Amino acid sequence: MAELRKASIAFSGSPLDRADNLRADPDALSARMDWKARLLLLDGLTPALDSAGMLVWGTLADAPDNAELVFLGLDRSDGGEKACFACVPPEGDARPRMANPDLWAIMTSLAPDQLALYGGARSLVDWHARHRFCAQCGHSTRPAKGGWQRSCENCGAEHFPRTDPVTIMLVEHGQGDDRRLLLGRGLGWPEGAFSALAGFVEPGETIEEGVAREVLEETGVVVRDVHYILSQPWPFPSQLMIGCVGTAQGTEITLDETELVEARWFTMEEVQASLDCTPDAPMRCPPPHTIAHHLFQWWVAQ
Amino acid sequence: MAELRKASIAFSGSPLDRADNLRADPDALSARMDWKARLLLLDGLTPALDSAGMLVWGTLADAPDNAELVFLGLDRSDGGEKACFACVPPEGDARPRMANPDLWAIMTSLAPDQLALYGGARSLVDWHARHRFCAQCGHSTRPAKGGWQRSCENCGAEHFPRTDPVTIMLVEHGQGDDRRLLLGRGLGWPEGAFSALAGFVEPGETIEEGVAREVLEETGVVVRDVHYILSQPWPFPSQLMIGCVGTAQGTEITLDETELVEARWFTMEEVQASLDCTPDAPMRCPPPHTIAHHLFQWWVAQ
Repeated sequence: MAELRKASIAFSGSPLDRADNLRADPDALSARMDWKARLLLLDGLTPALDSAGMLVWGTLADAPDNAELVFLGLDRSDGGEKACFACVPPEGDARPRMANPDLWAIMTSLAPDQLALYGGARSLVDWHARHRFCAQCGHSTRPAKGGWQRSCENCGAEHFPRTDPVTIMLVEHGQGDDRRLLLGRGLGWPEGAFSALAGFVEPGETIEEGVAREVLEETGVVVRDVHYILSQPWPFPSQLMIGCVGTAQGTEITLDETELVEARWFTMEEVQASLDCTPDAPMRCPPPHTIAHHLFQWWVAQ
Repeated sequence: MAELRKASIAFSGSPLDRADNLRADPDALSARMDWKARLLLLDGLTPALDSAGMLVWGTLADAPDNAELVFLGLDRSDGGEKACFACVPPEGDARPRMANPDLWAIMTSLAPDQLALYGGARSLVDWHARHRFCAQCGHSTRPAKGGWQRSCENCGAEHFPRTDPVTIMLVEHGQGDDRRLLLGRGLGWPEGAFSALAGFVEPGETIEEGVAREVLEETGVVVRDVHYILSQPWPFPSQLMIGCVGTAQGTEITLDETELVEARWFTMEEVQASLDCTPDAPMRCPPPHTIAHHLFQWWVAQ
């Protein structure tokens, strides 16, 4: 079951071979930029979809003049081998996914491998669009290594796409049928919407320290015995979600009102009812493509 | 044993309370910048040490005029509560730790809690020193939120300290006494120096996918059943090392010579002899403050 869960989480399982050896070999990469090469068609950061709900691909001839191209990898799905690219759009978008309602439909309609391919491409081109200048000296930068780097011609700095590690955690208390889960409702979330607590891992801490710090900051609850469960790439804009479980030393909550509107303990039955979307469910669950949903499923199956 | 291992890994276990509530409250933070506040004394990024090998602290009066100050957290170690700060140095340093021989001595001499405090501070001030300009528009930026953000007055972009997730993995093959571990020697490493394979997690992949991709790229070995073991913050400049173990599907190695000079399989006895630094040890182990060393210890204890 563990392997099944990991294989099926949204935004994982891209069918592309990233072929990183081509990134550092400009001649070999240029040779792949031929009539067989495919261009992922995007409107800004939104994918074009065909009537079957599949990603739409063009050729490199569809790229605007002077567009920055990034190399996504090789597609061997139809027996051949096609190099896949995407264009950097004029503007990026670092808003959280909640602010992108169009994407909800895409996330539920795209096949898993298509969604994974799109998510990785989106993170990469969004990073380029928001990192056209050198953070070290302010000069403009150019893509290098097939779009897996930007280089500054002025100071020589090399910049790499970001992936920000975020811990997201099941905080549990009690034994057996009395087990309960600590969940929170973030600022601006709809009434009844709860999810697992989460926060960025900061410089100078382990995953386990990050989990304990976030839970303490947001709810005042002390957590011990933190264990990793599963991870997910999350492309809004580019997080690595690291799902963990930990044991609370108490149940008293001191809310950080700059982060959460409310936090409370849910029983196993309440979490199960919410996953099942029963009429009397006490909360609205995060949707199935989120790691929080997978964590809830893992927890009720224990 | 798992908890002991996690508690004792180098650069973890900082004694400071990060007190993130103060970061977003300029008045409260200013009130902490009083005569009790402490300034971590650094020469560039190198810590000043006293005769007992402890970090040296000054007061905010020791900060150069117009220095950018970052808030590290609250120190309650002596029963009081002192706000701790550090200055952003004129230049950062993104070289790998191997290029900083002075730091080797510091890493082995500093007490664990001092090393953790220094590592987190180093990552943070180094990030500021190398990110004084807005990557989105090229304008200069200013520190915000106690140094946990930089803001652009021109385009409004907010930038946050980086923490780059890196997988580092034990790749094993065989059962019982026949178990062997796949290790590699990187470009420029001394003869006989081997470590676990490692690589950055890229946008669009899980931790487990990142492990499998890196091992395949660097050695041609297919890995399955990847499991997380432990993590470590690594401040050269700011990685989150994510230690995993996986099972190789075969032992044939196809070396990526742009990454590794050599790669080979080591037996349990060979890894143990290397950890023990016996005269006939077949390789030089990574030093005790590395996660690779901890992973090797974990592996031989299985």
